[in-house]
Amino acid sequence: MSYQVRKALKKDMPALLHLVTELAIYEKEPTAVTATLKDYEQNFEDGIFDAIVAEQEGTVIGMALFFMTYSTWKGRMLYLEDFVVTQSHRRTGVGKLIFEAVLEEAKKLDAKRMKWQVLDWNEPAIKFYEKYEATMDGEWLNCDLYF
Amino acid sequence: MSYQVRKALKKDMPALLHLVTELAIYEKEPTAVTATLKDYEQNFEDGIFDAIVAEQEGTVIGMALFFMTYSTWKGRMLYLEDFVVTQSHRRTGVGKLIFEAVLEEAKKLDAKRMKWQVLDWNEPAIKFYEKYEATMDGEWLNCDLYF
Repeated sequence: MSYQVRKALKKDMPALLHLVTELAIYEKEPTAVTATLKDYEQNFEDGIFDAIVAEQEGTVIGMALFFMTYSTWKGRMLYLEDFVVTQSHRRTGVGKLIFEAVLEEAKKLDAKRMKWQVLDWNEPAIKFYEKYEATMDGEWLNCDLYF
Repeated sequence: MSYQVRKALKKDMPALLHLVTELAIYEKEPTAVTATLKDYEQNFEDGIFDAIVAEQEGTVIGMALFFMTYSTWKGRMLYLEDFVVTQSHRRTGVGKLIFEAVLEEAKKLDAKRMKWQVLDWNEPAIKFYEKYEATMDGEWLNCDLYF
C-alpha cells in the first residue's frame, strides 16, 4: 500500500478526532473523549498543537499529534501526545512513516528531547518503540486534575 | 514567613535553573540537567514555557514551571513540568501558594485539565497532591528519545 504523509491541516480535524476515539477504545477508555471538533479546530488554529497525518487515496488512516514543550533538564522538548493508525492499516509500515516524520519535525524544531507515554500492557507499541532505542521508565505516576 | 507569589520574569531564570538542579538531586538524577541558562532564557522569551515564582525578601525560594498543551481527550491542558520549593522553605505553606497560583493560571487560560507527574516513591509530594483530589495513575510508561 502507498501512503502520503504530510502536516495536518484544519480540514483533517474530524479525522483526528475519529482516530483519537478509536485509540481511546483500544486503551479501554471508550468514554474518555469529551473534547469536541470545535475544540480541535480552535486549538489547532491557535497553534496549541500540530500533527502529522498519513493518507491513502484521500482518506486519513493514521496520525501523530504533538506540541513543543520544555524539559527543565534538557531544554526544548517535542511532546508526542497521541499516535494512532486505524486498525485495518496496522502492520503495513505506515506507523513507521508517521513516527519518523515526527522525529524529523522534532529535529527541525531544534528539540533536544522527544517524550511520549505508552500503556504498560501495550506490547505491540512497546516493541515498536524499542526499535528506536527509546528509554521507557515506569517510575512516574501521572497526576491529573480536571476543571 | 511571608512570601510574594508572582509570574516569572526573565531575570528569574538563574533561580529557576538552580531550583531545577536542586530537585534533580532530590530525584536521584544529579547529572541529568544539561539545559543551560541560555536555553532557559531563550525558550522563556520564545514563550515555550511560563512559570510562577515565590520570593522571600527578594530571593526566589520556590517555583512552578508550566506550558499550555493539548489533551486529545479533554482539550486545552496545562502541563506542570516542574514544581519545587527549596529545602529550607518546605513545610511552610509556600508550596500551597505556588500550586494554587498555577491552578488559577490554568483556569484563567481556559484549560480543561492540568497534568503533571510524580515519582512513585515521593511520598510527601503524593500526600500533597492527594489533598487536591488529583487522580494518580501508574499504568503509563514514560518514553524518551534524546537528540
